[in-house]
Amino acid sequence: GYAKLDTHRKLRSGFAEVVFCSGKADEHLLRIYERIYMAEGEVLGTRASKEQAALIQGTFCEAEYDPLSKILKIEKKDKARVGKIAVCTAGTADIPVAEEAAQTAEFFGNHVERIYDVGVSGIHRLLAKVETIQSALCVVAVAGMEGALASVIGGLVDKPVIAVPTSIGYGASMKGLSALLTMINSCANGIAVVNIDNGYGAGYMASQINRLGVHEAL
Amino acid sequence: GYAKLDTHRKLRSGFAEVVFCSGKADEHLLRIYERIYMAEGEVLGTRASKEQAALIQGTFCEAEYDPLSKILKIEKKDKARVGKIAVCTAGTADIPVAEEAAQTAEFFGNHVERIYDVGVSGIHRLLAKVETIQSALCVVAVAGMEGALASVIGGLVDKPVIAVPTSIGYGASMKGLSALLTMINSCANGIAVVNIDNGYGAGYMASQINRLGVHEAL
Amino acid sequence: GYAKLDTHRKLRSGFAEVVFCSGKADEHLLRIYERIYMAEGEVLGTRASKEQAALIQGTFCEAEYDPLSKILKIEKKDKARVGKIAVCTAGTADIPVAEEAAQTAEFFGNHVERIYDVGVSGIHRLLAKVETIQSALCVVAVAGMEGALASVIGGLVDKPVIAVPTSIGYGASMKGLSALLTMINSCANGIAVVNIDNGYGAGYMASQINRLGVHEAL
Amino acid sequence: GYAKLDTHRKLRSGFAEVVFCSGKADEHLLRIYERIYMAEGEVLGTRASKEQAALIQGTFCEAEYDPLSKILKIEKKDKARVGKIAVCTAGTADIPVAEEAAQTAEFFGNHVERIYDVGVSGIHRLLAKVETIQSALCVVAVAGMEGALASVIGGLVDKPVIAVPTSIGYGASMKGLSALLTMINSCANGIAVVNIDNGYGAGYMASQINRLGVHEAL
Amino acid sequence: GYAKLDTHRKLRSGFAEVVFCSGKADEHLLRIYERIYMAEGEVLGTRASKEQAALIQGTFCEAEYDPLSKILKIEKKDKARVGKIAVCTAGTADIPVAEEAAQTAEFFGNHVERIYDVGVSGIHRLLAKVETIQSALCVVAVAGMEGALASVIGGLVDKPVIAVPTSIGYGASMKGLSALLTMINSCANGIAVVNIDNGYGAGYMASQINRLGVHEAL
Amino acid sequence: GYAKLDTHRKLRSGFAEVVFCSGKADEHLLRIYERIYMAEGEVLGTRASKEQAALIQGTFCEAEYDPLSKILKIEKKDKARVGKIAVCTAGTADIPVAEEAAQTAEFFGNHVERIYDVGVSGIHRLLAKVETIQSALCVVAVAGMEGALASVIGGLVDKPVIAVPTSIGYGASMKGLSALLTMINSCANGIAVVNIDNGYGAGYMASQINRLGVHEAL
Amino acid sequence: GYAKLDTHRKLRSGFAEVVFCSGKADEHLLRIYERIYMAEGEVLGTRASKEQAALIQGTFCEAEYDPLSKILKIEKKDKARVGKIAVCTAGTADIPVAEEAAQTAEFFGNHVERIYDVGVSGIHRLLAKVETIQSALCVVAVAGMEGALASVIGGLVDKPVIAVPTSIGYGASMKGLSALLTMINSCANGIAVVNIDNGYGAGYMASQINRLGVHEAL
Amino acid sequence: GYAKLDTHRKLRSGFAEVVFCSGKADEHLLRIYERIYMAEGEVLGTRASKEQAALIQGTFCEAEYDPLSKILKIEKKDKARVGKIAVCTAGTADIPVAEEAAQTAEFFGNHVERIYDVGVSGIHRLLAKVETIQSALCVVAVAGMEGALASVIGGLVDKPVIAVPTSIGYGASMKGLSALLTMINSCANGIAVVNIDNGYGAGYMASQINRLGVHEAL
Ligand SMILES: Nc1ncnc2c1ncn2[C@@H]1O[C@H](COP(=O)(O)O)[C@@H](O)[C@H]1O
Ligand SMILES: Nc1ncnc2c1ncn2[C@@H]1O[C@H](COP(=O)(O)O)[C@@H](O)[C@H]1O
Ligand SMILES: Nc1ncnc2c1ncn2[C@@H]1O[C@H](COP(=O)(O)O)[C@@H](O)[C@H]1O
Ligand SMILES: Nc1ncnc2c1ncn2[C@@H]1O[C@H](COP(=O)(O)O)[C@@H](O)[C@H]1O
Ligand SMILES: [Mg+2]
Ligand SMILES: [Mg+2]
Ligand SMILES: [Mg+2]
Ligand SMILES: [Mg+2]
Ligand SMILES: [Mg+2]
Ligand SMILES: [Mg+2]
Ligand SMILES: [Mg+2]
Ligand SMILES: [Mg+2]
Repeated sequence: GYAKLDTHRKLRSGFAEVVFCSGKADEHLLRIYERIYMAEGEVLGTRASKEQAALIQGTFCEAEYDPLSKILKIEKKDKARVGKIAVCTAGTADIPVAEEAAQTAEFFGNHVERIYDVGVSGIHRLLAKVETIQSALCVVAVAGMEGALASVIGGLVDKPVIAVPTSIGYGASMKGLSALLTMINSCANGIAVVNIDNGYGAGYMASQINRLGVHEAL
Repeated sequence: GYAKLDTHRKLRSGFAEVVFCSGKADEHLLRIYERIYMAEGEVLGTRASKEQAALIQGTFCEAEYDPLSKILKIEKKDKARVGKIAVCTAGTADIPVAEEAAQTAEFFGNHVERIYDVGVSGIHRLLAKVETIQSALCVVAVAGMEGALASVIGGLVDKPVIAVPTSIGYGASMKGLSALLTMINSCANGIAVVNIDNGYGAGYMASQINRLGVHEAL
Repeated sequence: GYAKLDTHRKLRSGFAEVVFCSGKADEHLLRIYERIYMAEGEVLGTRASKEQAALIQGTFCEAEYDPLSKILKIEKKDKARVGKIAVCTAGTADIPVAEEAAQTAEFFGNHVERIYDVGVSGIHRLLAKVETIQSALCVVAVAGMEGALASVIGGLVDKPVIAVPTSIGYGASMKGLSALLTMINSCANGIAVVNIDNGYGAGYMASQINRLGVHEAL
Repeated sequence: GYAKLDTHRKLRSGFAEVVFCSGKADEHLLRIYERIYMAEGEVLGTRASKEQAALIQGTFCEAEYDPLSKILKIEKKDKARVGKIAVCTAGTADIPVAEEAAQTAEFFGNHVERIYDVGVSGIHRLLAKVETIQSALCVVAVAGMEGALASVIGGLVDKPVIAVPTSIGYGASMKGLSALLTMINSCANGIAVVNIDNGYGAGYMASQINRLGVHEAL
Repeated sequence: GYAKLDTHRKLRSGFAEVVFCSGKADEHLLRIYERIYMAEGEVLGTRASKEQAALIQGTFCEAEYDPLSKILKIEKKDKARVGKIAVCTAGTADIPVAEEAAQTAEFFGNHVERIYDVGVSGIHRLLAKVETIQSALCVVAVAGMEGALASVIGGLVDKPVIAVPTSIGYGASMKGLSALLTMINSCANGIAVVNIDNGYGAGYMASQINRLGVHEAL
Repeated sequence: GYAKLDTHRKLRSGFAEVVFCSGKADEHLLRIYERIYMAEGEVLGTRASKEQAALIQGTFCEAEYDPLSKILKIEKKDKARVGKIAVCTAGTADIPVAEEAAQTAEFFGNHVERIYDVGVSGIHRLLAKVETIQSALCVVAVAGMEGALASVIGGLVDKPVIAVPTSIGYGASMKGLSALLTMINSCANGIAVVNIDNGYGAGYMASQINRLGVHEAL
Repeated sequence: GYAKLDTHRKLRSGFAEVVFCSGKADEHLLRIYERIYMAEGEVLGTRASKEQAALIQGTFCEAEYDPLSKILKIEKKDKARVGKIAVCTAGTADIPVAEEAAQTAEFFGNHVERIYDVGVSGIHRLLAKVETIQSALCVVAVAGMEGALASVIGGLVDKPVIAVPTSIGYGASMKGLSALLTMINSCANGIAVVNIDNGYGAGYMASQINRLGVHEAL
Repeated sequence: GYAKLDTHRKLRSGFAEVVFCSGKADEHLLRIYERIYMAEGEVLGTRASKEQAALIQGTFCEAEYDPLSKILKIEKKDKARVGKIAVCTAGTADIPVAEEAAQTAEFFGNHVERIYDVGVSGIHRLLAKVETIQSALCVVAVAGMEGALASVIGGLVDKPVIAVPTSIGYGASMKGLSALLTMINSCANGIAVVNIDNGYGAGYMASQINRLGVHEAL
């Protein structure tokens, strides 16, 4: 087949390859799940459709699918979850992206706290959660529209903040570009940005950082 | 001469014409100041250079120039200042634009409270001032870089917020376009936006709103 | 549940929370309507689909749905409507956005005058209505394509103008971005701009301003 | 030399080649003026600097330079000017571009009416001139900032309107791009647009149209 | 009803109102056709769907619909067509827009020559038609992708060229924005540009120009 | 004075306030250095001009200025530097931004390895350094033009990569926007991006991450 | 018919006309295939739908359709394939565009090597293939997302590289614009870029170059 | 020193490293010229200032500087120039970029024909040169403003065309972005594009192609 499964990846990165399911043909997807399952005993897939979930569950009855995050995974039992990553959202519409981040981080063995719907237009909601957020080793801030959440959190914590712009919004939000620009221009320190709706990427990097903080080899 | 002074403006709008000094030839500028002074007994000019200030002060010794706001004005004495407009900035670099807004509003007879350098990356600074801001009839929020200040203020007050993006920032701030987009996409209610660095426009509209609130004919 | 209803909002802002229906799951939407109805005795929802209207009307038979503005509301009877807000559109295609603004303002207790299809390409239509517009305490100017309406109205009235760009147009209108830029760059005084198609936001801010003008506590 | 003077142009287009002076080396510029003068007995140059004017006037003492329009020309005496082109501007800052248009059209033998500083924020100024504008065979509408002038004029006349966006403005005017978009999206009929600050191009096309209207071969 | 039919338009512009059918509700559309038919004895509509055509043909059996141009018209018989407008396209995919231009101009009483599929990548096709194009009083140049056709034609004729960018293309054509920019930046003289896919606007303006050339009152 | 020194910052973030010197007035700058020096016994300033360096060195003779990074600091002696941060650049022109990152991280007590001029157009240069890079706890990848360096590094290491686009390049690099887009769209895992030329921001976040890895309280 | 088949093309360019099937009407498409088949004995069509394939196969039973590349062709038997073109992709999702390039080049008589899924986030995959790539006379590099592949290949080979950005990606990839900018700004030498997803254009130009290298007249 | 001279480059690419002089410090530049001269016996530098030319000529008296192309080189005598590359420009203002391309190609041992000022607004100028252009093995098309030249040439030749957009133009030319888009969207076959003003890149790639055509190892 054309695709080259990156079997060296776990060696290089400490994390096995994750499947980006969107757009993959059925037969192709199944073969990839099989190969990774063979090698790792577990598989994480993102952006899976319901149909793809049914397909994989046909072969792997223990496969779990979450329609909110669109994560389709086969996961080893009793994995420990260490450290603490806080995943925050501005609104409820940002939750699917946040869940992609949170569940990715959990799959990689990290403990995640969810603090959702604490956008800056009602700042008391965020302030009420400030201690939980400050106790994390890494924060993921997920927001669409004007994306101001990342800056406010950045000013409240002393740990790295990974900002995820979402495509939530309309008009001049330009499908997330406005939120991305907001976050890139943040006046707060300790913020870096991933692509629009890239919950996976934020969860991955948060995992790398959290692991550093729990003093374990990645 | 080519230019048509808009002598009907005060009738239509309640405010005399304001001079946009930038780029005007000396002779032209002087004639405009003279004509407005004749009609109104006072003149407000914005974006004046030091050289233009010297020119006008040569003829009108009572003319005052503020190099920070670049406002060059001849103002009647003992004008009352009514109501309350809060003018807030995120950083110190936004102050020149804020002063253009504040001094415009003051010239038009409004009382202005300045709350500067209260950007969202250190939210405690803003929260410390929240009562002053809430006591205003209208708020002007001036911010560059990611421009998140407007959203946070919008969520804290029950009066209209006029957001002014500034060209402060670098890189992806794109000379204020990022801040403009942030403010236009604000998730808070009661926010509307003027052009980048348009302190004058914000001060003007705040004056209209504040006057409504003090129950006086404009 | 994830979502945090902002029950402090009325205290902070004088207006109860408004439901942005678009994209909300049925069960979630129903619970929100129930909770707000419990607290306020009335509910305003925007961007509701026909299906959502049927859902809410299943539980609240007094709920009203307007397919033009997509507003889905349960409203107390005999509310007074005070002051005067003028809502103007350039074309007939802009009316849905204008109605979102007008009905929001009416729900919040404001009197609204509608002046529709008075775009600048036939300026006599606008001039014929100038006295009605000038008699308002606040004007909402709704326009797509080149969005020039706001500037012309801004020059004719002495009250604040809230400009709403719409996504009406094609080609280089870029789904409303052109109209937004036109309005932000307006050479007229006393204009501020909200997001593309954001009738709700304009209606909300117009309500704040109109209330100031009728000398009532918000 | 490298450059190829387009000596066939007058045959093809009815107009001799016009010199775009900006950026041309002295020696090169002088040779071009000489060659065109030889062939035509007159020369039109645009975007000339003061230094270039002095250079050409050193050789051609009858050369005239207008620092406002930056037009540097040697013109035959007693040329008739036929028909009528109206050149309108929104503000005084747009006049240099308008003069480039007007003087180009005059050089090509057209009669020009100037109607300056009639921008839409004070629409009475434009309405006061409506008969003059309507009597022209072609209208050039020059405006920066939000560029709304073209649409209003387009709705008032039954002749073609050539819209010229200018780079006047700041912030989101993006050096004329906003005005260009406004004009391209005009809801009025009979408007077409040339490049930002391209007074020359507008004057040229207006000349072509006006000549058609006076029933003369170009 | 909300919409204001612009009954003064024919007086002001010499052309009766044209119906932009796209998006209009059935009942609304029918009423507009009826009213214009009453006043003018004929109606021109653009951007009509098949369903709208069937609707109008239900009432007006003489209504004609062209699915290519999407023009839906009721036209008086035996109207003269005067002068000459050349309508050119770069490719066959641009023909629908060109037909909107051509049929608009024909409805307004102008003679149209169609020169299609003469894009610059095979310049001999254009050169073979050069005399026809040069014999027109006005040229409409319709092109998508890189839109270079307008410049080449601009250099070959001595009459005004109206350039129409189309949304034909993919990738970096950005739905016509690239072609629009090409045409606005044309190095040829005598070119002005209308909105992307705006065949109607080009046909309208070409009609104004052609009429000037045939020495008739518009 | 207007500016509010953020004296709580060290408590909140573990890092004292850093001075952004660019654009600050002399008197203002001096006062800030004095106040921070008083509180911390050391000061870090970025984007300082030569003139500002001379000014500060007039008062603080131990102040050091590096014209390459434009960092102007007064630093305590014998501070330990722990952990390992790798700072990489694509070209030599990216070094000033890289130095801003590296020296910021060093000031905050981190050990930094510099790997410069290893851009992807000569990949052997990067591969020769791969072990050094892999031994770091955090990598900063600095690149202009097409900014591909971050992706290649991201694929080679198992630690977080902070990508810094620079404004190096010309034409379509759009002063760093192209590199920013490249980095945000990276197909590699574990990359997040800061603003164009924001070496300081990258150095700050790298410090937070590195400190987590060396098991010390920040 | 409207369309002008470019029968001179083979003379001018050495390649017969290729059919861009997308959007063509059935009857029109069939006629074009017939005419080219008549003239050439073979036909190459790109961007054909399944339905169009069925249509053409109804008349030409030897027509072959590849749903991956969407190429629909009738090809002479036993054509020689000379030289060597390497076609590389970053990911598996880029393969359809790569196949359009590869099959176009093969149809024109060139030998093609496919090296797929060798994106820079796992650089060892590319390095493992470096000798094959270096042995080609021309390289086509196909990549979406951040498009960094072209730069790395550009640094590894001494032959021309044609870079094809694809629309693969999401968020800030802006449907391929980001990859296009990456490739245009490449710091490597010997790279030029075609439109987003333009596999055909790359295959065509690679054919021209490869033919030069095999010392044959085109 | 920081910079890593890429001494393997000639092995990998057949061309020695070329110096991008712009922005390099004097001492640094001199050392680079010395090192390359030592290794190659000749040096090619681009984008050199007059001051840099004087510096290098101080050490290497045989160094030649062309202020038009800004190329500063030390070249071996009596190098053969093989094959044929045609370098074309639209206007005279594009010549500096064209010369950078032409002189780069000449330095690398290729024969270059210059065909300047043959822009499409006077197509006869280009047609008069068509045979020279067709006789080349590779064509470089250099154009600013609307950049249409590349498409017309692409349709006239059967060899690869490398298109170079230039920053010549004003207003909506956006410093070359418009020309770049024109060229990327070209409807002609066999065109690929390099960065704005990147004459060097075009000359380099043309050299690679021309060498293939003359049957010599690069
Ligand atoms: N949701 C996601 N967004 C971005 N990248 C992802 C996502 N999920 C997986 N990936 C990455 O995509 C790679 C697989 O892509 P592919 O080779 O196209 O299957 C994985 O190894 C991850 O690095
Ligand atoms: N700083 C400013 N920004 C935007 N508009 C201004 C400013 N100052 C004055 N104006 C407006 O510009 C008008 C005068 O412009 P002008 O006719 O060019 O002199 C005034 O009537 C104000 O409406
Ligand atoms: N101000 C102007 N803006 C745009 N084009 C101009 C202008 N002035 C002259 N031109 C055109 O530029 C051509 C000369 O350009 P060049 O060959 O660079 O000297 C003239 O023939 C005109 O078509
Ligand atoms: N004018 C130019 N435009 C783009 N790249 C260039 C130019 N001149 C030289 N280069 C490239 O820049 C490299 C040297 O860059 P640097 O390492 O910064 O000195 C050379 O090897 C060439 O690949
Ligand atoms: Mg909420
Ligand atoms: Mg501060
Ligand atoms: Mg209408
Ligand atoms: Mg004025
Ligand atoms: Mg064709
Ligand atoms: Mg180098
Ligand atoms: Mg893969
Ligand atoms: Mg020329």
